[in-house]
Amino acid sequence: MTASRQIHLVKRPSGKPVLEDFAIVDVRVADAGPGEVQIRNLLMSVDPYMRPQLDANQPLNAPLLGGGIGRITQSNNPKFAVGDLVRHSMGQQEVFLSDGRGLTLLNPDPDLPLSVYMHALGGTGITAYGGLLEIAALKDGEQVFVSTAAGAVGSVVAQIAKIKGCYVVGSTGSEAKRRWLIDHAGLDAAIDYHADPIGKALKAAAPKGIDVYFENVGGAHLDAALACMNLRGRIAVCGMISTYNGDREGVRNLSNMIYSRIRMEGFVASDFPHLNAQFISDMTGWLKAGKIKYQETILEGFERGPEGLIGLFEGRNSGKMLIRLAD
Amino acid sequence: MTASRQIHLVKRPSGKPVLEDFAIVDVRVADAGPGEVQIRNLLMSVDPYMRPQLDANQPLNAPLLGGGIGRITQSNNPKFAVGDLVRHSMGQQEVFLSDGRGLTLLNPDPDLPLSVYMHALGGTGITAYGGLLEIAALKDGEQVFVSTAAGAVGSVVAQIAKIKGCYVVGSTGSEAKRRWLIDHAGLDAAIDYHADPIGKALKAAAPKGIDVYFENVGGAHLDAALACMNLRGRIAVCGMISTYNGDREGVRNLSNMIYSRIRMEGFVASDFPHLNAQFISDMTGWLKAGKIKYQETILEGFERGPEGLIGLFEGRNSGKMLIRLAD
Repeated sequence: MTASRQIHLVKRPSGKPVLEDFAIVDVRVADAGPGEVQIRNLLMSVDPYMRPQLDANQPLNAPLLGGGIGRITQSNNPKFAVGDLVRHSMGQQEVFLSDGRGLTLLNPDPDLPLSVYMHALGGTGITAYGGLLEIAALKDGEQVFVSTAAGAVGSVVAQIAKIKGCYVVGSTGSEAKRRWLIDHAGLDAAIDYHADPIGKALKAAAPKGIDVYFENVGGAHLDAALACMNLRGRIAVCGMISTYNGDREGVRNLSNMIYSRIRMEGFVASDFPHLNAQFISDMTGWLKAGKIKYQETILEGFERGPEGLIGLFEGRNSGKMLIRLAD
Repeated sequence: MTASRQIHLVKRPSGKPVLEDFAIVDVRVADAGPGEVQIRNLLMSVDPYMRPQLDANQPLNAPLLGGGIGRITQSNNPKFAVGDLVRHSMGQQEVFLSDGRGLTLLNPDPDLPLSVYMHALGGTGITAYGGLLEIAALKDGEQVFVSTAAGAVGSVVAQIAKIKGCYVVGSTGSEAKRRWLIDHAGLDAAIDYHADPIGKALKAAAPKGIDVYFENVGGAHLDAALACMNLRGRIAVCGMISTYNGDREGVRNLSNMIYSRIRMEGFVASDFPHLNAQFISDMTGWLKAGKIKYQETILEGFERGPEGLIGLFEGRNSGKMLIRLAD
């Protein structure tokens, strides 16, 4: 038996989640049985997609669902050895058992920090890669607009577009993030949408219009993009974070889709298994060459899981938000 | 010289167009010069797409732009003989000259009335055919929802979907049109959205969800469809008539596109020249076999052009609205 803790959802949030919606629960985990492994969690991910789950799919009084990286501490499963690193989706718990299903062995590049396998080389990275190159069918040199461009997905989207020779405009929620986009990520233009209304600012920042909009926000952002889209433009719908807490701002410019023949398409990270090998190869190369810059906001300590998730909706993260339990 | 009349836009409408926005103007048309033909208009089409043009592309104090069928009355152009029927886009004028560009020779099937070449075998027909089969990529047996299903485009969409073995729900704006959809066009279910709120009515009428939504309305219709879309559903955006007069109802359910991987795409009638031969062959066969039923609202007399256009936005047409000048 091993002492462990879990973070439970104890109350479905009304609007933005608050600390009182969660509880830390002490548990004891049995030793690995036949075919099982025991895993100690090292890194936990918090992501915007977790918010809608709190309203429905996430069970109450059970560990908060989400992705992470852990180390095998006991193994009765021939596929895994003690010490192996695995990617998992067992969520917010310190130690847990698994029959091996849903675990992916990780062979991290020794020249890269483990945390990048939770973002640029993980779910947010392939979301950016597949969404931009397959769903939006980006062509070299196009005009690109990325919302939440300093976020975990957006920052990778924007920099892949730069690698592909595009003109790239990003939107973000603070002057500090705006400066990071220009000075570090190398975008052509960046908008702080809290300082400048997005519609007018985007028109000024994208004088040649937009061929591809990578959508993470919805509402006024989508209306602003629709007003600027070029003929046969594509909108890859990755997220609509402005709508997740219940205040759904109506979108009014959709009729622009008709004459401009806009295609708009939704997708999720798991849609791109066929791209995975190429993605890992491209992204490892780009990261090691310094072509993809990233930011991380790492909260130290298991008990900070709920704070991390809540912080996503308050813009408290720069880049990928992670919780670190141990090295 | 030949006496003629033209219908001019004399004032850009504020909201819904009114008769005072138009004027009938007497003109005299010269005889056909070198390379020219003179044409007498027989049928004029009024279509929803003409409304947004009144705000911008349609010149003031010039003939109202639109499609029609005319007969060659004089010809100095070897491509056209006196008596030939042509499709044109010269709009609302009785007699006019052309150098032949933009004219298409028409060889109507003797077993079909000429008017069908203005709808089922014309622009609205290929809009329905290309939008449903190419943009929405309809598969046999799918669940289909068509808005303004008793209209010129919608009624053809709905019946092609029936020919392809689909379950088809239509929405329309009166009980008489609703009955026509069930009793004559053979739809599986039809909703009078003035009598029943579209969101609740659609959920009840489409118990297996929707694979393809053919969008002509926007606003609450689109929100209702988004709430019912199945995984990897497609929305072919043909029109958003609810938004054309300026009152743009916001759309709130777009985030459903993400997890359901919805594709939504805009298009116009002229996007399908590569389908034209197959379309003419299929549609002529379907019409002669009675598999595509249609309704026409034909206003007799040139001077009724503005009334016809305005009537589109008041639901005064059943099926295709046409103005007949002569046989």
